[in-house]
Amino acid sequence: MKSISLLGATGSIGQQTLDIVKEHPEEFQITALSVGKNIEKTKEIIRAFQPKLVSLQLEQDALALQKEFPQIGFTFGKQGLIDVATYEDSSYLLNAVLGSVGLESTLAAIRQKKAIAIANKETLVTAGHLVMSEAKKYGAPILPVDSEHSALWQSMVGENPKSISKLILTASGGSFRDQSREELKNVTVKEALNHPNWSMGAKITIDSATLMNKGLEVIEAAVLYDMSYDDIDVVIHRESIIHSLVEYHDTSVMAQLGTPDMRTPIQYALSYPERLPRPNAQRLDLAKIGQLNFKNVDFDRFRCLGFAYEAGRMGGTILTVMNAANETAVAAFLDGKIKFLEIEDVIDRMMQQHDNSLNPDLETILHVDEETRKTVKSMLK
Amino acid sequence: MKSISLLGATGSIGQQTLDIVKEHPEEFQITALSVGKNIEKTKEIIRAFQPKLVSLQLEQDALALQKEFPQIGFTFGKQGLIDVATYEDSSYLLNAVLGSVGLESTLAAIRQKKAIAIANKETLVTAGHLVMSEAKKYGAPILPVDSEHSALWQSMVGENPKSISKLILTASGGSFRDQSREELKNVTVKEALNHPNWSMGAKITIDSATLMNKGLEVIEAAVLYDMSYDDIDVVIHRESIIHSLVEYHDTSVMAQLGTPDMRTPIQYALSYPERLPRPNAQRLDLAKIGQLNFKNVDFDRFRCLGFAYEAGRMGGTILTVMNAANETAVAAFLDGKIKFLEIEDVIDRMMQQHDNSLNPDLETILHVDEETRKTVKSMLK
Repeated sequence: MKSISLLGATGSIGQQTLDIVKEHPEEFQITALSVGKNIEKTKEIIRAFQPKLVSLQLEQDALALQKEFPQIGFTFGKQGLIDVATYEDSSYLLNAVLGSVGLESTLAAIRQKKAIAIANKETLVTAGHLVMSEAKKYGAPILPVDSEHSALWQSMVGENPKSISKLILTASGGSFRDQSREELKNVTVKEALNHPNWSMGAKITIDSATLMNKGLEVIEAAVLYDMSYDDIDVVIHRESIIHSLVEYHDTSVMAQLGTPDMRTPIQYALSYPERLPRPNAQRLDLAKIGQLNFKNVDFDRFRCLGFAYEAGRMGGTILTVMNAANETAVAAFLDGKIKFLEIEDVIDRMMQQHDNSLNPDLETILHVDEETRKTVKSMLK
Repeated sequence: MKSISLLGATGSIGQQTLDIVKEHPEEFQITALSVGKNIEKTKEIIRAFQPKLVSLQLEQDALALQKEFPQIGFTFGKQGLIDVATYEDSSYLLNAVLGSVGLESTLAAIRQKKAIAIANKETLVTAGHLVMSEAKKYGAPILPVDSEHSALWQSMVGENPKSISKLILTASGGSFRDQSREELKNVTVKEALNHPNWSMGAKITIDSATLMNKGLEVIEAAVLYDMSYDDIDVVIHRESIIHSLVEYHDTSVMAQLGTPDMRTPIQYALSYPERLPRPNAQRLDLAKIGQLNFKNVDFDRFRCLGFAYEAGRMGGTILTVMNAANETAVAAFLDGKIKFLEIEDVIDRMMQQHDNSLNPDLETILHVDEETRKTVKSMLK
């Protein structure tokens, strides 16, 4: 039985993690979890999964729920995330919160030698150097949850890492893959949120449409698998059936395929090195799908992907700037404050004016993150 | 340094094996080899690879070459194949001869605990039960060379075999994949030999056109990976880029991809568990290929595939009958004696009239093989 601390239980990845725990009650239990402000959903989760510790965003919500569930421990805020992440009965942390708030809790859990199933992108994008060195020091496994990184991982099982020549990330192309750059000028929030293949949260759906999501994944792949950016390719694959590929130096290419269902990579992160049956999940039927398409990425149409390669190659605080500028700009787009293509402009401007410093510590990262968000917000007022 | 006995050095697989040995002189050497009657090619190979033992089909050829190369040992005929296969300085046998003649030498090498890189289909199709039980008894690894079985193997590395739910073999569809059954009636030998993707020997190219090749591969896969025929699927994939796939019970599907080049799986069989670089080989470029297509097999148009499933499910001597009838009928087609679709009729008739017996020993298999060939030949006179 694996005991799991789940950060972000009411989000898209969190909910699908709970689905997997429900599918395998003999294998997994949720010992601690964090939620935001959705009290009704939190109550449902508490009743269904009987965690020992629950963290809420706000203190008053924690106090209110404490009265209703006196047998359960409650905590809240930033410290609450760390309490859940480091909860002593848990052997796994599945970190599915959005934003830089996930970073401190991941590092705290690594120091408690938890296995880290990582769905929070900021952790590897902005602090990859810290996370990987701490993980090595404490012997904490870092287990990807993203479908692409899980596919890379599965394509490396039993292989000698030295014989890897290239990682190939597939990208659906997002909501606007068939639009010209001209047509992108006036797309609406609603159009952007209509992802062709995956059902995901709003922020990541916008990131898919700009290809920033793929850019963040390129950086994560470089960090997770210690690969040079020259050896990480992105290919547009509109069907999202091949989740990613690893090329070896003998020219063999290994790939993981499946229907687009995040629960499979979530489960793999938790069940590894075993695979657990998913008898009710949809199986891949290649003949029914009929055709898989591939084409090169247009770096002019998708400027964010180029930003990510650039920031990744530089390393340092510019990664935090890129990520924070993107998050803030996407939020502004979702709020109707800026147009779709202005997301790129914001990131570009912030990266241009940044004075990069390498190997930042956690305080520096959090400081740069905060400053970038402030600057972008005042810029967009 | 791995020392290799190579049976069938002048054939298509044999030549490509020599290419691989040439690419990696620090890793591989040919210690013993067998050839047929091509004396000039044999001389070239001897000069280039300096084997210690060479077997020819005919005694007079062996005697003639002995005079020219006095420092090398020569042997011939059936016993010659066994001498090469069991040559004591060799740790590997790569068996790339065609037909049932490969069977005895494989079994002899297994008993000498050689690692068996197997390209001879008859070995697993007609005597799979003997080969696998002897291999287990003597601890001799059976390493597939076929691109499809190599792809399955590579898709299983590091995985628990118990979590495999299905093997999916891809089939290019062969030379006549776009013809209707009506159109198949009068196809010529030349048309049949024009395989769209792979450069192979004549017999296997015809087997690809009838899909008997895929049928033999289904049987080999069942034997090699101890799978039920219900859990082995075939999907038509005209580009031959995905070489085969393994579905796991968590719905993940692992696959091996590459440009169609037999040297990669040949090398993998010899280099496993390592992969060796092939810097000059063509790499896969999915964006350049653009599209991968898949469709279900039409068992009415490709009757041989159904025969193979039927014989495989029955087991026993009917496998030998099917294989020998096919080989003899294909030879008759190549000689212009029968039409393309008559290959199926011959196999069907021989299978129908056979009185099957299970778990045959080697003598029985060889006897049934000989009898079937005789019957077919007299039938086609």
